[in-house]
Amino acid sequence: MPERLVVAVDVGGTDTKAALVDAEGTVRAERRLATPPPGPDRVAEIVEVVAELADALARQAGTRPDALGLVVPGIVDPARGMAVYSANLGWRDAPLRDLVAERTGLTVAFDHDVRAGGLAEARLGAARGTTNSMFLPLGTGIAAAFVLAGRVHAADGYAGEIGHANVGHDEPCSCGLVGCFEAISSAAAVARRYAKRTGRPVRGAAEVAALLPDDPDARAVWADAVHGIAFALAWTASMFAPEVVVIGGGLSLAGAGLLDPVAEELAGMLSFQRAPRLVTAKLGDQAGCLGAGLLALDLPAAPEES
Amino acid sequence: MPERLVVAVDVGGTDTKAALVDAEGTVRAERRLATPPPGPDRVAEIVEVVAELADALARQAGTRPDALGLVVPGIVDPARGMAVYSANLGWRDAPLRDLVAERTGLTVAFDHDVRAGGLAEARLGAARGTTNSMFLPLGTGIAAAFVLAGRVHAADGYAGEIGHANVGHDEPCSCGLVGCFEAISSAAAVARRYAKRTGRPVRGAAEVAALLPDDPDARAVWADAVHGIAFALAWTASMFAPEVVVIGGGLSLAGAGLLDPVAEELAGMLSFQRAPRLVTAKLGDQAGCLGAGLLALDLPAAPEES
Repeated sequence: MPERLVVAVDVGGTDTKAALVDAEGTVRAERRLATPPPGPDRVAEIVEVVAELADALARQAGTRPDALGLVVPGIVDPARGMAVYSANLGWRDAPLRDLVAERTGLTVAFDHDVRAGGLAEARLGAARGTTNSMFLPLGTGIAAAFVLAGRVHAADGYAGEIGHANVGHDEPCSCGLVGCFEAISSAAAVARRYAKRTGRPVRGAAEVAALLPDDPDARAVWADAVHGIAFALAWTASMFAPEVVVIGGGLSLAGAGLLDPVAEELAGMLSFQRAPRLVTAKLGDQAGCLGAGLLALDLPAAPEES
Repeated sequence: MPERLVVAVDVGGTDTKAALVDAEGTVRAERRLATPPPGPDRVAEIVEVVAELADALARQAGTRPDALGLVVPGIVDPARGMAVYSANLGWRDAPLRDLVAERTGLTVAFDHDVRAGGLAEARLGAARGTTNSMFLPLGTGIAAAFVLAGRVHAADGYAGEIGHANVGHDEPCSCGLVGCFEAISSAAAVARRYAKRTGRPVRGAAEVAALLPDDPDARAVWADAVHGIAFALAWTASMFAPEVVVIGGGLSLAGAGLLDPVAEELAGMLSFQRAPRLVTAKLGDQAGCLGAGLLALDLPAAPEES
């Protein structure tokens, strides 16, 4: 039997990453193209970019891939193969799975980028060996993935949208609500709130983290972010009680500088609920792409051509 | 093949309910005994009560049941068959599944009362026909059950302990934390807070509900309870996104008087998350016992004696 190889594609707001992944989840080759900017035919253009990446990887491998795994941000319904909504990518109800399958002739597994990342961290990364885990990438925005008894919970695409749940602060969010998690705890919020507070723009959350030892403003902004994360994890511990929470995204680069204060504040918020073990992500910005590969590998094998 | 019949037992703080349940989930006979009061041998005494109920129901049916389903409150680890902790029943790490199996000679399915109730509401009750549902009984305390793709999420017994998650208020809870969900939204809390506020004791939350049209104190206490429920459901919608939330327990007897204001406040707390449909429980205080029956029926059938 020939070796099983799949193409994995992760469509992001700026870049579209692709990889050739083997049955062990190892990346054999990688390619990347810019995601087409907003325009009237953006869905068609994105389908074209995905196909181009798949073609190039297949040529490079000298073989036809067995399947294609595709992940995108926003609200994604894997069962219907539908990109329901993405503010960033500007689509509503785009039947991406079928469009890409038609264009490439490949069987397509389709899901949400963060849920796929959660699956990858659970099978290959920081939550390997656990039954129940949460993946929490803190980047531009915040969404989470819940891997429960080894399966990613999707709920028709609506699971894990915790960026706009209330963590108990008074600041308005761009979504119109007050108290949203991502308004104080995303990497983007940390940078934005520090700049607003001090009048000194920073390039990102990492710069704020570097200022922590000497700058009370950096500490105040960081403490708010920590509070939001601890609050969200207290709810997670109370509802799903994961063994491990894998924290990823830009903010997680602070490592113990983030995880230690979160664990401390979280402990003070729990009664007899089980506190999760907090770890940083292992797969970095490859998590979504690797997860797309795993989803494609999980598809039933195509019948042998004869 | 003889008809499949199981004994279902739900050990509560005051009463222990038992039923003979057939393969369709229909209750054929019921019995009830007082749960033994606290004492040095309480675990052994409770095992005895369970066995007595099982014997009586078997004699009544004139047959040996195929299995026994047992559910209890507190922290319950179904995989290990362990009653990990219950403040009410006063045990820690009691191997109840094996104790009851040994005493009765029956195969025992063992789980948490609220999780079993959630399974029963999902298969036979108010959430029938849905894939993802939440069961939220608002009684003396608050715990929840999450049914995911037809299975109840247990997380080693720690899932659903949302009674002490923070819903954003200033009142201390008996657990030592501040802002706990069950400190304002349980049926017991509604009665207690009304009595404290007015100096007029009430028999229960139903009495407070009856006072709503004319009594601003009742309305204030009720509004706090509604706020807590809406807050908890906003987190549920953001993380788990169930299609339906089945509200049970004493407080749910208020029907639309509870569900309508909760749905309204919840709508104002959601951005693009999916709002669940809110319904009242159908199975009343039989839910836990019926769920115990379903768990016993789910056990693999015992080999035929020859």
